[in-house]
Parts: sequence; structure tokens; C-alpha cells
Amino acid sequence: MSDAISALDTPAALVDARRMRDNIERMQARMDALGVKFRPHVKTSKCLPVVQAQIAAGAQGITVSTLKEAEQFFAAGITDILYAVGIVPSKLAQVLALRRRGCELKVITDSVAGAQAIAQFGREHGEAFEAWIEIDVDGHRSGIPPEGEALLAVGRALHEGGMRLGGVMAHAGSSYDCDEPPALRRVAEQERSGTVRAAERLRQAGLPCPVVSVGSTPTALSAQHLEGVTEVRAGVYVFFDLVMHNVGVCGLEDIALSVLTTVIGHQEEKGWAIVDAGWMAMSRDRGTGSQKRDFGYGQACTQDGEPIAGYVLASANQEHGILCRAEGVDREIAARFPVGTRLRILPNHACATAAQFPEYHAMVPGGEVETWPRFYGW
Amino acid sequence: MSDAISALDTPAALVDARRMRDNIERMQARMDALGVKFRPHVKTSKCLPVVQAQIAAGAQGITVSTLKEAEQFFAAGITDILYAVGIVPSKLAQVLALRRRGCELKVITDSVAGAQAIAQFGREHGEAFEAWIEIDVDGHRSGIPPEGEALLAVGRALHEGGMRLGGVMAHAGSSYDCDEPPALRRVAEQERSGTVRAAERLRQAGLPCPVVSVGSTPTALSAQHLEGVTEVRAGVYVFFDLVMHNVGVCGLEDIALSVLTTVIGHQEEKGWAIVDAGWMAMSRDRGTGSQKRDFGYGQACTQDGEPIAGYVLASANQEHGILCRAEGVDREIAARFPVGTRLRILPNHACATAAQFPEYHAMVPGGEVETWPRFYGW
Repeated sequence: MSDAISALDTPAALVDARRMRDNIERMQARMDALGVKFRPHVKTSKCLPVVQAQIAAGAQGITVSTLKEAEQFFAAGITDILYAVGIVPSKLAQVLALRRRGCELKVITDSVAGAQAIAQFGREHGEAFEAWIEIDVDGHRSGIPPEGEALLAVGRALHEGGMRLGGVMAHAGSSYDCDEPPALRRVAEQERSGTVRAAERLRQAGLPCPVVSVGSTPTALSAQHLEGVTEVRAGVYVFFDLVMHNVGVCGLEDIALSVLTTVIGHQEEKGWAIVDAGWMAMSRDRGTGSQKRDFGYGQACTQDGEPIAGYVLASANQEHGILCRAEGVDREIAARFPVGTRLRILPNHACATAAQFPEYHAMVPGGEVETWPRFYGW
Repeated sequence: MSDAISALDTPAALVDARRMRDNIERMQARMDALGVKFRPHVKTSKCLPVVQAQIAAGAQGITVSTLKEAEQFFAAGITDILYAVGIVPSKLAQVLALRRRGCELKVITDSVAGAQAIAQFGREHGEAFEAWIEIDVDGHRSGIPPEGEALLAVGRALHEGGMRLGGVMAHAGSSYDCDEPPALRRVAEQERSGTVRAAERLRQAGLPCPVVSVGSTPTALSAQHLEGVTEVRAGVYVFFDLVMHNVGVCGLEDIALSVLTTVIGHQEEKGWAIVDAGWMAMSRDRGTGSQKRDFGYGQACTQDGEPIAGYVLASANQEHGILCRAEGVDREIAARFPVGTRLRILPNHACATAAQFPEYHAMVPGGEVETWPRFYGW
């Protein structure tokens, strides 16, 4: 394996395909055991081989964060797609075009104005858009509370407007702020119960609500049961990262994405090794900065992937990273990591780091390295 | 202008070409007045039309942060290129190939080991690489102090090793931490005097040192004189950003890069408008978070570019931004910015935000919008 890795230019985004497969199997097995469908969020990888592995393992449909993802994965043959960002009227023409080509693209909304805009555009173009209602279960971002009149008003605007009210969906983003299993279980139950309650209220009002969709990586891995839920969504679990490690849902040894880098110099008296992975490679994400353990811009590992205890990317410029001991000065750093030494850096946030690279270099079983393209933009 | 902008999908990276031209002319005029060459750092834009405008205004040569930039701009006909990240031996083959094709590519180093590696590889391949020595003027990153034996040892390793010792270069990154003109002038003078001192010591030791290169946007715009300096490098000035505004070297009205976004929903009781520019569009850069004025993920402006006082992108998820009043809750936010409202967001850090987009939409004189591609990766 090391020979193929040694031949790569740095910085490079490495995917450990065995770890990725294990992460996929772990999540799918959990969803199977909980009796729900699984709809992975592909915004993390934006990469066809990754998504194909998720589908091969049992995923049913995908979640996207941009219409570009919908276009790309539909072109690759995936038809059951949820666009999980509130739709604005100006994007409906693109949604319509995708649906006319056979894509079962679903949109979401959390306002009467949004629902009316969907219904109006749909009627004008003779299309019964499928829309889901976004539910707010933890106040972290978008969505309508499960209680109150707004939910039913949105439901009616869609249903009576001639659209297909496909279900409700929620994302408990506040789970990222937890780091203990009891708190994670509580957030997972809050996500489940709030979303199920919204579905029940719609049905009691005589409105259809076939799908009850919840999810985030931490809640998906923490829920004790998912009664009333029909499907779960999660994204970052496919690679995991240091933020998820701090949340407590993976070990360092599960993190499948890393950045390969080379030592380019030192400031010995400061205990610094300068590497060629700066924030352009790692992203500016400092997610662990507000968590129980701050990994700076990433945890250093050997080129073979073994974590080097206590050594982190403490700071970063555009193409320079400063690698040092997290605590105390290592005056032997130049001898420990001479110029040319290659290391791997585990990222704070896989979604953000992956987005900095045009492709992944995937270490697949047998020691080969495959190039997996990813796309970006909107 | 608004019609062409209104037709764009969001999020989109907008460049105000008039502001950009003014920024370019301001910097070039300053460099001309100070009697130095100007070698812009193209890592900010990674875009040929931008760099062509810089060269048309008088720039001589470019600075790059990756060999991919060197490849791309050399392919476009630019030959005088400084690769301003410490070279590692594994990248010398690519440097050699570029030079063999006619690219006057210069590399930098800050260690005897690095200099020896360059010399050895050069001799093995019959190539007299041009190398500059990186000088540390403020302890912020890489480089050798102007005083001390290391400088001369590196110079000798290059010169006596048969390479072309082209000069010295420094980057006073600590200027980004300033926000008052006297401090900026002090850092600029420290950058100038340290780099000139290094050049003098090399020359006194009988070593060649034709080029004395300094630069950062804040120091380039603050230096009172540049005696002994032959060229200046700067990058972000071409677009400017909120970090530079806080440093005090530009006004909000000079910032040429913004992200066009659409309001997709609200949480009225919290005073939030949700927009479709999250951190994937803005980048995770929170550079103003440690400055005198924190703009969150960016300053909101109307679609026409007028700043909306007090409204910032306070937080961001991957594809969602939370727009609100920086202080206090605006309970009228849904009426103020209804779903579908289009806004521009000024970024913390132009280099980071620009990197999130495959292309710029440039508003050029006459009201047209041109698509200017940019590249990424390594």
C-alpha cells in the first residue's frame, strides 16, 4: 500500500476504503435492525463510487444538499432523491426539468409562502411536485414546530394546492453539540418523537404523510428505537472525522478520510514542522475548537495511518500547516520529521475537507490506489 | 446590471470588475511610486482574466502557491513565476519539467537540507535551478532569520552547489494582526529592513542576491519607502475582504468579491432569515472573529451591493446561512427579506471564499456578466 501512496503528490485526499466500507456496513446494519430505510446524505462525499457502495450495502435513495448533486447522481442512474434544503421558487424550474427527465426528486419547505409557491408553479406547469415539510425539533436551523397551526397550514397549502405531500423530515443538528451517550439518546428521541408527532397531526387533519424522515450521524447511531419513523438520513458517518470522534460516535481508527502531506521545513526552536497541507487542503473548519478536545486543524498520523499521539496541525496558512506537539515544545521535531517526511492528517470535518479536493485517492483492498473524482459547486 | 445578476443561480461568486480594476490600479500606482516591481500573488483568484488585468496594469511576473497554479498560468503564456512555498525534493521533477518547457520558475527554501536537495537534484539533471532564500521577518511561519550563520550556509549550499541564487524573499504575515496605521508601518519596515539586511549579508559574503522580494497586502499598502527592495508581492488586495477592512487597508466599498444568495426561509421569533449561502459557499473562514469587528460569516448587502448596516451572516451550516441583525432581534425580518429575496454577502477572506466556487460571475462595465473560470486542487 505504501508504494502507491508514496507516489502521490501532496497534499492529497486519501480514503481508506476498508474503513469506509466498515462505516457503511455499521450504519446500514443499525438501520436494518431498527427497521427503517436508510437514505444517505451524499453531500459529504459528492463521489459516485462512495454512493454506489452505500447503495450496494442497502441504502434506498439519497439525500442531496444542492441541485448539482441531484443532477450528477441522477445522471449516474439514481432516481430517488431528496433535496434537503428549503426550496426557493427560482429553483423550481430546474427541479421540474429533472422530474420531467424521470428523476423522482422531492423538495422541502417550511412555510406557507413556500408551499404556495411550489403549488402555483406546479399547477402552472402541470406538475404535481412531491414536497416534504421540514420540522424543527431542536431550534438549530430551519423547520416548523411539530405543534401549532403552521404545520397544518403548510400541509394544506401543498395538498389542497394539488401537490403531493410526501411526508415530514427533520435534522437534529444540535446532536453535534453533545459528547455523552445519554445526551445523544435524548436528542435522538427528541428528533424521532417531534417528527412522528408532526406526521400524526397531519394525518389526524386528514392530510397524507407517508414518509417520516429523520437523521444526523450522531442521532442515527444513538437512537434506541425509531417507532413511527420510516427512514433515516446521515452523511458524515461514511468517512467520520475528529468532530464525530469528540461527539463520541467513532474512534480515530474509524476515520476513513485523511490528507496526505509532506514536511517542507522547520522552526526548530519553536518545535514546528511546516507541512504542505494548509487550510486550502484541510479547510478552515475548526469544529473541534469548541469541543472537549481541540485538534487544531487535524490530528497527525504516520503515512501508514497510525495516529502520532499529541501531534496536531496547530495552525494553518493557505498552503502551509504548522505541525507541533499540542502541549509543550518538541525541540527534536526536525529529527523526528525531516524534510520530505510524509504524514496523514485526520480532519476536523470530513465534509469541509473533502470539498477542497477535486478527487480522492482511495486505498482499496489489495494495495492499489484508485482515483475517485468528486464534484463541487452549484 | 441587476437583470443579468437576477438570472444567476445562487449561491454564486460575484466579482465587481470596476472595483477590482480600481484595486489593481491603486496597488500598481503605489508600487510604481515606490520604485519597485510588482509580482501579484495569484493564489487569491486562480483566474486568468484577473491575472491578465494585473499584468496589463503593469505587474511583472506572478507568485503562485501551488505548482498547479504554475502549470495553469504558464500554459496561458506567463513565464516569470515564483513558487512561494518551500520546495520539497519530491516536487523538483515537476519544477524541472516546467523549466524544460520554458517556464522561468523559481523555488524557495529556508534550510541547508533543502538547498542541498535542490542542488543535488539539479546537478543530477543538468539544471541550474533558480532558488530564492525565504527570510523570517516576524516569526509567523517559515524562513531563516536575517542574522546568523544559517542564511549564509543556505546561500553557499545553493551557489556553490551550482544553482542560481536568485535572491531573498519574505512575507510579513503578522501584518494581518494589525489594525492601526502606525503598527502596519512598523511591520512593513520590519519586513523591508530584515529582508534587505539578509540580502546585504549574502552580498557581503560574496554571494549573489539580485532580487529582494517582500510583501503582503497590508505591508504593501503601508510601507513608507522600500529602499533596497526590488519587488513586492501581494494577493488579496485584488478583491479585498472584511479581514482587510478590519486591518484598515480598504473600505467596504472596495471589496470586489461577494456571494450572491437567496432567502429560503425564516425563523421569525428568532429574527433569522435562512439563506442558501452556507459555509460551502462562504468557506469556514472566520477571520474577523478575532478582529475588532466580527462580521460572522459575512456582511449582508443588497443585490445591488449596498451594505445593509448591522445585518450579518451570523452562522452557517453546509448549505444554509443564518442572516440576522448582529445585535438584537429583528422580528420584522420575514417582511424585510421575504423568501426569494436576493442579497450579496461580503466575505471574511476572499482567498478562502473564492476557492469554494468553480467560476466567478464578473460584472463588467456595460452591465454584462461574464463567466470567469477558476481552478482548484493541486
